[in-house]
Amino acid sequence: MSRFSEPQHPVFQQLNASIGFDWRLGPYDVDLSRAHAKMLAAQGIIGQDDRDALLRALDSVEQELQDGSFPFEPDDEDIHMAIERRITQLAGRVGGKLHTARSRNDQVATDMALFTRAHAQAAQEAIRGLMRALVATAERHLDWRMPGYTHLQRAQPVYLSHHLLAYVWMLARDLEKFAAVEQATARLPLGAGALAGVNFDTDRQLVARELGFAGVAENSIDAVSNRDFVLDYLAAAATCGTHLSRLGAEIVLWSSSEFAFAEVSDAWASGSSIMPQKKNPDAAELLRAKAPRIAGHFVALQGTMHALPLTYNKDMQEDKEHLFDAVDTLELCLAAAAGMIEGIAFDRERMAEAASDEFPAATDVADLLVRRGMPFRECHGVVAGLVKQAVDSGRTLTELTLTEIREQSELLDGEYYEVLRGERWLESKDSEGGTSLRRVREQLDRARALLG
Amino acid sequence: MSRFSEPQHPVFQQLNASIGFDWRLGPYDVDLSRAHAKMLAAQGIIGQDDRDALLRALDSVEQELQDGSFPFEPDDEDIHMAIERRITQLAGRVGGKLHTARSRNDQVATDMALFTRAHAQAAQEAIRGLMRALVATAERHLDWRMPGYTHLQRAQPVYLSHHLLAYVWMLARDLEKFAAVEQATARLPLGAGALAGVNFDTDRQLVARELGFAGVAENSIDAVSNRDFVLDYLAAAATCGTHLSRLGAEIVLWSSSEFAFAEVSDAWASGSSIMPQKKNPDAAELLRAKAPRIAGHFVALQGTMHALPLTYNKDMQEDKEHLFDAVDTLELCLAAAAGMIEGIAFDRERMAEAASDEFPAATDVADLLVRRGMPFRECHGVVAGLVKQAVDSGRTLTELTLTEIREQSELLDGEYYEVLRGERWLESKDSEGGTSLRRVREQLDRARALLG
Amino acid sequence: MSRFSEPQHPVFQQLNASIGFDWRLGPYDVDLSRAHAKMLAAQGIIGQDDRDALLRALDSVEQELQDGSFPFEPDDEDIHMAIERRITQLAGRVGGKLHTARSRNDQVATDMALFTRAHAQAAQEAIRGLMRALVATAERHLDWRMPGYTHLQRAQPVYLSHHLLAYVWMLARDLEKFAAVEQATARLPLGAGALAGVNFDTDRQLVARELGFAGVAENSIDAVSNRDFVLDYLAAAATCGTHLSRLGAEIVLWSSSEFAFAEVSDAWASGSSIMPQKKNPDAAELLRAKAPRIAGHFVALQGTMHALPLTYNKDMQEDKEHLFDAVDTLELCLAAAAGMIEGIAFDRERMAEAASDEFPAATDVADLLVRRGMPFRECHGVVAGLVKQAVDSGRTLTELTLTEIREQSELLDGEYYEVLRGERWLESKDSEGGTSLRRVREQLDRARALLG
Amino acid sequence: MSRFSEPQHPVFQQLNASIGFDWRLGPYDVDLSRAHAKMLAAQGIIGQDDRDALLRALDSVEQELQDGSFPFEPDDEDIHMAIERRITQLAGRVGGKLHTARSRNDQVATDMALFTRAHAQAAQEAIRGLMRALVATAERHLDWRMPGYTHLQRAQPVYLSHHLLAYVWMLARDLEKFAAVEQATARLPLGAGALAGVNFDTDRQLVARELGFAGVAENSIDAVSNRDFVLDYLAAAATCGTHLSRLGAEIVLWSSSEFAFAEVSDAWASGSSIMPQKKNPDAAELLRAKAPRIAGHFVALQGTMHALPLTYNKDMQEDKEHLFDAVDTLELCLAAAAGMIEGIAFDRERMAEAASDEFPAATDVADLLVRRGMPFRECHGVVAGLVKQAVDSGRTLTELTLTEIREQSELLDGEYYEVLRGERWLESKDSEGGTSLRRVREQLDRARALLG
Repeated sequence: MSRFSEPQHPVFQQLNASIGFDWRLGPYDVDLSRAHAKMLAAQGIIGQDDRDALLRALDSVEQELQDGSFPFEPDDEDIHMAIERRITQLAGRVGGKLHTARSRNDQVATDMALFTRAHAQAAQEAIRGLMRALVATAERHLDWRMPGYTHLQRAQPVYLSHHLLAYVWMLARDLEKFAAVEQATARLPLGAGALAGVNFDTDRQLVARELGFAGVAENSIDAVSNRDFVLDYLAAAATCGTHLSRLGAEIVLWSSSEFAFAEVSDAWASGSSIMPQKKNPDAAELLRAKAPRIAGHFVALQGTMHALPLTYNKDMQEDKEHLFDAVDTLELCLAAAAGMIEGIAFDRERMAEAASDEFPAATDVADLLVRRGMPFRECHGVVAGLVKQAVDSGRTLTELTLTEIREQSELLDGEYYEVLRGERWLESKDSEGGTSLRRVREQLDRARALLG
Repeated sequence: MSRFSEPQHPVFQQLNASIGFDWRLGPYDVDLSRAHAKMLAAQGIIGQDDRDALLRALDSVEQELQDGSFPFEPDDEDIHMAIERRITQLAGRVGGKLHTARSRNDQVATDMALFTRAHAQAAQEAIRGLMRALVATAERHLDWRMPGYTHLQRAQPVYLSHHLLAYVWMLARDLEKFAAVEQATARLPLGAGALAGVNFDTDRQLVARELGFAGVAENSIDAVSNRDFVLDYLAAAATCGTHLSRLGAEIVLWSSSEFAFAEVSDAWASGSSIMPQKKNPDAAELLRAKAPRIAGHFVALQGTMHALPLTYNKDMQEDKEHLFDAVDTLELCLAAAAGMIEGIAFDRERMAEAASDEFPAATDVADLLVRRGMPFRECHGVVAGLVKQAVDSGRTLTELTLTEIREQSELLDGEYYEVLRGERWLESKDSEGGTSLRRVREQLDRARALLG
Repeated sequence: MSRFSEPQHPVFQQLNASIGFDWRLGPYDVDLSRAHAKMLAAQGIIGQDDRDALLRALDSVEQELQDGSFPFEPDDEDIHMAIERRITQLAGRVGGKLHTARSRNDQVATDMALFTRAHAQAAQEAIRGLMRALVATAERHLDWRMPGYTHLQRAQPVYLSHHLLAYVWMLARDLEKFAAVEQATARLPLGAGALAGVNFDTDRQLVARELGFAGVAENSIDAVSNRDFVLDYLAAAATCGTHLSRLGAEIVLWSSSEFAFAEVSDAWASGSSIMPQKKNPDAAELLRAKAPRIAGHFVALQGTMHALPLTYNKDMQEDKEHLFDAVDTLELCLAAAAGMIEGIAFDRERMAEAASDEFPAATDVADLLVRRGMPFRECHGVVAGLVKQAVDSGRTLTELTLTEIREQSELLDGEYYEVLRGERWLESKDSEGGTSLRRVREQLDRARALLG
Repeated sequence: MSRFSEPQHPVFQQLNASIGFDWRLGPYDVDLSRAHAKMLAAQGIIGQDDRDALLRALDSVEQELQDGSFPFEPDDEDIHMAIERRITQLAGRVGGKLHTARSRNDQVATDMALFTRAHAQAAQEAIRGLMRALVATAERHLDWRMPGYTHLQRAQPVYLSHHLLAYVWMLARDLEKFAAVEQATARLPLGAGALAGVNFDTDRQLVARELGFAGVAENSIDAVSNRDFVLDYLAAAATCGTHLSRLGAEIVLWSSSEFAFAEVSDAWASGSSIMPQKKNPDAAELLRAKAPRIAGHFVALQGTMHALPLTYNKDMQEDKEHLFDAVDTLELCLAAAAGMIEGIAFDRERMAEAASDEFPAATDVADLLVRRGMPFRECHGVVAGLVKQAVDSGRTLTELTLTEIREQSELLDGEYYEVLRGERWLESKDSEGGTSLRRVREQLDRARALLG
């Protein structure tokens, strides 16, 4: 019997019910209940028979959830009540014992921690998959030249492998962040009860071990009020999404006729409804498009948690849809990025041609002057003069005459023309982390080591 | 001489110049230049005399920045150019050698890493300060009773110490996050040059050691394109800010006449311009108000980085104002929270009275029935009936007669009245992490251990 | 036949397909196609028979979409292709003529404009519904006293009706904003083709009239690149959501035992899984919780549109889920708010008691002194002294003796006690827009007039 | 005398004081006080002499604020108190009368409304300036051909004038939004007092007229709780900023060597610290970069207002910095965009060459088939086959032989080659709003009419 004398308004039910999305917590809720039932029996709070009956019913529920036969009912407000109801249908009155010494508050927090942990792991696996695809692609294009850009201006030539590896290191940082998310889910909320702890002699450490938590949440109030780990996932996913959006943006650029550095395979492109000649890099565009969506989830959940008095408030139900959509978006994008990268075809000649632009090598002339004793800042001025002269007269740097270059600085001589020969530009960048082949091979070794 | 033939438009200069805010990087830029000059000399790229002259000039600049005498000039576009210009004024032509084997791109990235690291450390120190204030306040109010709330409804009584410690564990997680931010700044960008590495035989490990980095950035392209550590700081600060906003929101609530649980000291309150009787908890309101501002910085910087092709783009200049304001906001809020908490006066009687409401103890009646063998879910129904009867007849639960309670369940007897005696409610929550005094003392020990 | 030789990768299809959400555009797409077919025939681009066949097929599709019998197929990538495919199944080869002189780009933009317009209208209707509920509730509680708060401190007493009407004026502003959203959808994109216009002698004005647009988009490039009206909807919805969140937050506060000003009806509340005595104002909490979600959609879509080169990019597909969720959230919240407000029970006595606190009337003493010639700022000081004296001695303001008050200012006399009588406080606030009954009745008249 | 016995803590003062930014409201506060003083005198609440003394002091303050001689003092917490203090210094005791019948709450709300209105007008002026620059640039490049893009793939050729005019229509919508912001500030808050109205017989209509408001806020509670107009400004500015970011992104693209469509003038570019040959389109990059910053302000202020109980709360002080920074950012960006556009040089030949790619004309072949009776969808298939054949054999479409094209469809004949001649592509897009010269000239007329 309820203390309420009036049924819930249908609009309220629609607003209030979470079953439409929190069904995804089902498998985690079953795991949780299994561990909880075992603990209750181990502590003598319920009998062994009760435990066995509950475990049998939980197995059935797990199966039903898996094969889609779980019988949802119109009054199921959330997945937790649905499962408990179903267990009572399957196991009889003993089903009512499952909720002993727990509350929906610590239960939901624990389910969310389990879900977040599982998907922090899935994110790491997917990130590794993309890293492997990038490493393999870098290896296949080890010494392909391309322009490196700053301000989208050609700045200095680099190897395509070096450029692709830049994304590997971004993703390596994402790995660390998702590992930290896992850590952030490592303290078991269950056992906190509604907020103050429970009246029974429970063994939270046992439940923690059973469910793979490193320890228990130290404070019952914090345990039910905390959604930091969800925020941590969203922040990590937003930054990872931003990395993907930069990769997507570059592939879109490279796929344009103007760049024409790359072409995505047909499997990752689509056509136009009225322009049959078009091959659109839709997958790359969608990679580019999704980062703000994840960042939006982060800022929205921060907004919902902001200024909330302790402990549990219904507002916190908002955590789920933000997390679920971020998980789906990120995992799909990572898989798509890996698949797309594997199938992309680069145009060696076109990239090399773009990288052979002489102006980007101007820095090397400056460095030549430095070696001859001129302070760098002055060299910069000399080279600027050379560039201006070349640009104004519509020539390249090597088309300037010896006389002309010596007018800019007497320290210059024939080596000026040597330095500006394309093949020297890349290999001279031999400092640690630089684009010379030796350094790129070092990077590849490190990346492979990281991927195990 | 510049390759440009037309001066910059004043509106462009206003848009482009960062000196108005990046002056804050000054001391970090000096440290960086010092380490860079030493390395250049150690590698024989500049002479020992040049190094000494540069170091002397850097010492002067440091001093000038510190005492406010640094002579900024109208044409100083950013702090890096301003410092290099000043060094050349102080040391002469040798100043122009400082920029050998480095670029503004790796220089800015390194300055930002140094700044972020320093303020990730400052955040941890300030967080520890607030934790200490909370622990001390919890100790002073160890056994003060108050209602614990869910849905802002009184749910179960707890000790004020237990409630305050909930914030300590939130902040302990923030500590971990800021420690991770420090880790995220641990790989030195300097040496990446403009994007491809440098032409000189540099020693990046030496610079890293000198500046306290654990290693060097593995990829020069990534090194100059990366601002993840700034995003990490902003994410950590946003969540920490949200914790502060919950604390602020509770203090605002508690300061209301309706709650009247607490009164902030005069030093942390303000009056009204026309209502002289008012004492407004402004500091608590501002703690509450600031979290969205920091989250706004996070989403804004993600937005700016989103879809940016590699490597450096001018867009990335936006990182600074977001970070600087977040740093200032967070550090001020943490200091204010600590100060305010220390001075707050709680009203023991008022809180105890609010905690003596019998209805929150209804769970304990359910647990009594559980111990007598009734499945929890059924107990819940029995107690709901008791509550409804009491509410409908305008009585408390203990004002129901034995006959009445036994009508709801024959398993009930005189212990019903025992269980509803206030003193038992809190101490019965003796599960790990619960509100019983024994458990709160455990928590205090752990919190003190954490604080060293 | 397609120019592609490789089938799309399943992961790409999953990322790329929008049919999972854009089916909601179905009815609008049918309307659009109907108008388009009529125009094509009117201009002689297709024959009358073709038109009739297309219209018949469109009627069938409309019916199928309505009754759920529309046969979606696995290869349907989006609703537009699904409908065109279905029309060809129903009408045969002529179905292929429907896409003459249009493109998916202008088609999607038009569908989105139609959807946005319809829901901008729906939002206005729902807002009016809530305004009516608030006005009716205000009328029923016309002269009920309650404290007005600043900083959550009791500041000055007001009538509950006046307080509730504050929300009516917020919502009136929302009405204006959604009317502006409607205006923002008033220029027809269709006819812009892929981006450059079409080769056929179309009549866009005819289509505009048919579909209820005020005019046509002036520039074909802008027409397919523009999603401003979606951003406008999201901004309006975010602010409206924030209004609802303030209302929700107040109802949560008022429902606490400490305030105890109001109780939501059972139809709009829920119980606790382990605390049977609880009645939680879940609906109010969810109203409070949702605003950041909508604001998150706004910032996310801005993020996606940001820095996008013209014209259509696949990224723009993100507009849909943001809009659809915002529409669902807002419409549900408005309906819930209206229902909840209608059923809420206020506690007249409790509110009046809280409003009878004498301190809030201190301003009136200041105003008394002003009338006697003292500059307001000085009065403020005098009254502050009176308040301090009362607070320090644990008395109310009227418990101070005449001697005591005259020590603070000789301008005070017996009228001091008059002014502090509760009944005068509210009615004296008789300035335009103030809380006196006369002014509240004026407001009610205006609100009713606004609602027609 | 204050009721407080303890001085404010310096950290609290730092957190609480707004004078560091709200000094910008100074001139508006002076205007407000002038109107208020006149009204007080007109209603006989203060004498004519008092009014004159106040007005004289206000004139002096205005002058001091303007020439920078206003003497701020360390204890000035906000600009309102600073000005009142100064007036009392200048005018003596009568200064204390200025705050009669007003409160800081309605005063701040009114200052903010005045500031927002002024800058909504300034935004419109600046937008018109940019529109004029775009129209002039479009006129100068009326018939310059360039590729129109979808998915950053060349899709259909357009005139540069048509492309530039797309931005004019975006900005025209921004004009409407800022006009709506003005409307949103049109109801005077002043006279609402602290929250409930005032005790004096004021004339709010008089003040409204004096300050240029269309009417008075209908409800005193709403008047002091409302910051919707600030949110409206931020939403309008965010969308306008996003338009600018798309323009900036395109100019960055066009400035790349790969596109090489345009070159910004030296006055709007900068060089590289180590790559003297570089000319970076920094202004365009910064235009691109700033939109998320403004959207961040919107979401942050929504976050702060979210769940705030009525009426005024200190949290609302956050409105200022968000608004001020958004105003500065937007106004600077609009000015920069106008200046940059005026100086940009387009490369006619390069753009024409890019537009001469035959594939984008494939749609016209489809349309030819439509005219010969084939349903569009089938034409699409035929043309896809032609494109595939051309691509596979490394030829252009016109290099296919008559036999080959007739194998795809017998409806094709020599006109196929006609249709693919470049000059026909653009002029055939003669539908309303299309890219044909006739239609672009129509647009120019309309744009000029709009600009007056």
